Amino acid sequence: MFTIKNHLEIENSRLTIGGVDTSNLVNEYGSPIYVTNEQRIRDNFRRYKKAFPDADLFYAAKANGNLTILKILAEEGAGADVFSDGELYTALLAGIPRDKILFNGNSKSDRELLMAVQTGVRVSVDSFDELNTLSSIAKNEGKVVDIAFRVNPDVSPKTHPKISTGLKTSKFGIPHDEVVSAYKQALDKPGVNPVGIHCHIGSQILEVEPFVETVNKMMDLVEQISRLGVEFEFVDIGSGLGIPYEKNIEVPTPNDLADSIVPIFNERCKAEGINPKLVLEPGRYLVGDSAILLTSVNTMKNAAKKFVGIDAGFNTMIRPVMYDAYHHAVVANKADKNAEDTYTIVGPICETGDIMATDRELPEIEKGDVIAFLDVGGYGFSMSSQYNGRPRCAELLVNKGDVDIIRKAETYADLLANQEVPPRFL
Amino acid sequence: MFTIKNHLEIENSRLTIGGVDTSNLVNEYGSPIYVTNEQRIRDNFRRYKKAFPDADLFYAAKANGNLTILKILAEEGAGADVFSDGELYTALLAGIPRDKILFNGNSKSDRELLMAVQTGVRVSVDSFDELNTLSSIAKNEGKVVDIAFRVNPDVSPKTHPKISTGLKTSKFGIPHDEVVSAYKQALDKPGVNPVGIHCHIGSQILEVEPFVETVNKMMDLVEQISRLGVEFEFVDIGSGLGIPYEKNIEVPTPNDLADSIVPIFNERCKAEGINPKLVLEPGRYLVGDSAILLTSVNTMKNAAKKFVGIDAGFNTMIRPVMYDAYHHAVVANKADKNAEDTYTIVGPICETGDIMATDRELPEIEKGDVIAFLDVGGYGFSMSSQYNGRPRCAELLVNKGDVDIIRKAETYADLLANQEVPPRFL
Repeated sequence: MFTIKNHLEIENSRLTIGGVDTSNLVNEYGSPIYVTNEQRIRDNFRRYKKAFPDADLFYAAKANGNLTILKILAEEGAGADVFSDGELYTALLAGIPRDKILFNGNSKSDRELLMAVQTGVRVSVDSFDELNTLSSIAKNEGKVVDIAFRVNPDVSPKTHPKISTGLKTSKFGIPHDEVVSAYKQALDKPGVNPVGIHCHIGSQILEVEPFVETVNKMMDLVEQISRLGVEFEFVDIGSGLGIPYEKNIEVPTPNDLADSIVPIFNERCKAEGINPKLVLEPGRYLVGDSAILLTSVNTMKNAAKKFVGIDAGFNTMIRPVMYDAYHHAVVANKADKNAEDTYTIVGPICETGDIMATDRELPEIEKGDVIAFLDVGGYGFSMSSQYNGRPRCAELLVNKGDVDIIRKAETYADLLANQEVPPRFL
Repeated sequence: MFTIKNHLEIENSRLTIGGVDTSNLVNEYGSPIYVTNEQRIRDNFRRYKKAFPDADLFYAAKANGNLTILKILAEEGAGADVFSDGELYTALLAGIPRDKILFNGNSKSDRELLMAVQTGVRVSVDSFDELNTLSSIAKNEGKVVDIAFRVNPDVSPKTHPKISTGLKTSKFGIPHDEVVSAYKQALDKPGVNPVGIHCHIGSQILEVEPFVETVNKMMDLVEQISRLGVEFEFVDIGSGLGIPYEKNIEVPTPNDLADSIVPIFNERCKAEGINPKLVLEPGRYLVGDSAILLTSVNTMKNAAKKFVGIDAGFNTMIRPVMYDAYHHAVVANKADKNAEDTYTIVGPICETGDIMATDRELPEIEKGDVIAFLDVGGYGFSMSSQYNGRPRCAELLVNKGDVDIIRKAETYADLLANQEVPPRFL
């Protein structure tokens, strides 16, 4: 038995997760299927929290919005960064305290702002227009809502352009040179109480330097705005620590991040005589490597490449197609075998781009084998669809040898669930 | 009143579809919402059928798998190209005759092949491996299934790489030089009866030349294979005629396509003394321009650009982000006003790439306005997801002033529908 990656192990040639044989899971629960190891999420959270004992960690719920996974993180003491009414709903159901929920979003509807006011969570305000709307709604409800402004920090995080959120050109946040004016306006408006400041520079970031730049820029603003009379309860610098999807790449740890930014943050707070909480919004880091996607080989074909046709395509996991993302592939039932050939693993979707893995060196693959994709806990199931008329797959939770179904597989009935045929067609 | 595009019109400054005011639809049924004009689908189908009176048109169900839309096409006489068990299920429920259904797919599961055998539809076989599996399954069931082989024709359609399906390097089909051997093997196997040949070169193709090349290549094969003793009942050349998403681009009509390929097809069949049916698989062409997506403006922001924050992002329509697709945008409640400014329209999703339309010249936009995106009937709702915890939106069917709900909007309950929380978390 040897360890393949983090919490994954190999026993009798077969990949195991949380002490459970993956091939057995496919036999018993079907394929494709997402499998999350509960303990790994807890370990990831605790490692992050240990690096940042004085900070609040608001889990970025978009990475994986499964209710059970939110409950695990709630048990660990996480707050939540939510980006829609649906995420807010799920986070509250999961028991995350409302004072640890920040409602983010660049385009919130009035209904969503009303829900934020009614549930008493904090709101990250993304524009002057939203400030006005939120103020009216809160005043109407006879409430005062605690807010932060989302700042566009104009920092380049060196990640995939689609997920670089803090560039000057991005749709997010208030331009850096208008932030002070936003706080001034907020101080004069009813229904809103500025108590924080917020930014986010991107996702899957592999260096700490952009975070250092971000903290300094944010603290420059905090100093200026404190002098207007705003008492900062929190400074939320978002998150975005990457995970090593590919072997042999170096990623900073939470400790590396903490070592780089906490001393600066503390020193600047002390110099200013203020005591805000540092808030971070890890998502992918907490859940990304906790899950694998198990798929079955339907068919083999020698053509331009040696194609392995599996039962999961970009309907099940869109990251390879959407972001050219790499997910390590393991032949789960031959996990200790040596590579014998080069394979390209393709999904069943009717698009040429539906390729899950290109030119991978793997043991000999046959119909019926189980291919496991690693590190799919973040932006995996949460981005799945029913495209090509495929019901969405199940999710399992494993923990020290136990297995729970945390989301049942959809059926044909789910494809038709909300459909109505007008009687004239019957 | 003047016509803005095809079946869409403007009355009293407001965009109408199927005789219905779009702004009223948003007030009554909510936002975002897909709205399909029934008559436009019928007109598109009839135009195609008129150009190809002797051909069978198998609607590519993946473009829009709504049951009511399949029923409309069934009423018009369409067959169906299905790519999964779920699409087969829906097509049969919609009443499409089983002898007009072709089950395509590069990676069908055994369960899917069994379903094809049991329901008696035709199967497009994508590999030698699949031929063996299908033969065993059919033999086991005591049935003989009519098949075609999916040929990789090695033709470049000059469209987006993700949807060029007939390149030599693509995952689809049997390599051109192995096709004859595939038919030889099929003739010797139980349970399978080769009666057709099939290929597909791509989607959103804007020239007819690639189709001419395809027909010639396919007929070369048909000639060779006929001499083996295969009696071809059909030759399916797929489809892929583009639609003019952008104004001022020229697209070939079904008539243009028919004029280019039908004489070649007929002449070559006559020369060979055979009489197969020509089959085409239009998808986007039939439904693409039949629908619009209505969205509401949540918030305005002047930053790097003039951002218009709407309530639909790539969760609702992924084409702009996934394929850099252009969809014409109209301010539905100011549809006859002149452009006054340049706007970038962004969705509410927490990714920088969530941009629906960049730098569009439009009338002055305010919070509460309704933005309509045109030509969203194909690959619109069918690719939507619940990403960022957003329930999927409703679909309406309009027809000569009448409105029917053909898919209700999802609610928070739908986000949790198949989820189960293990009791130890309660």
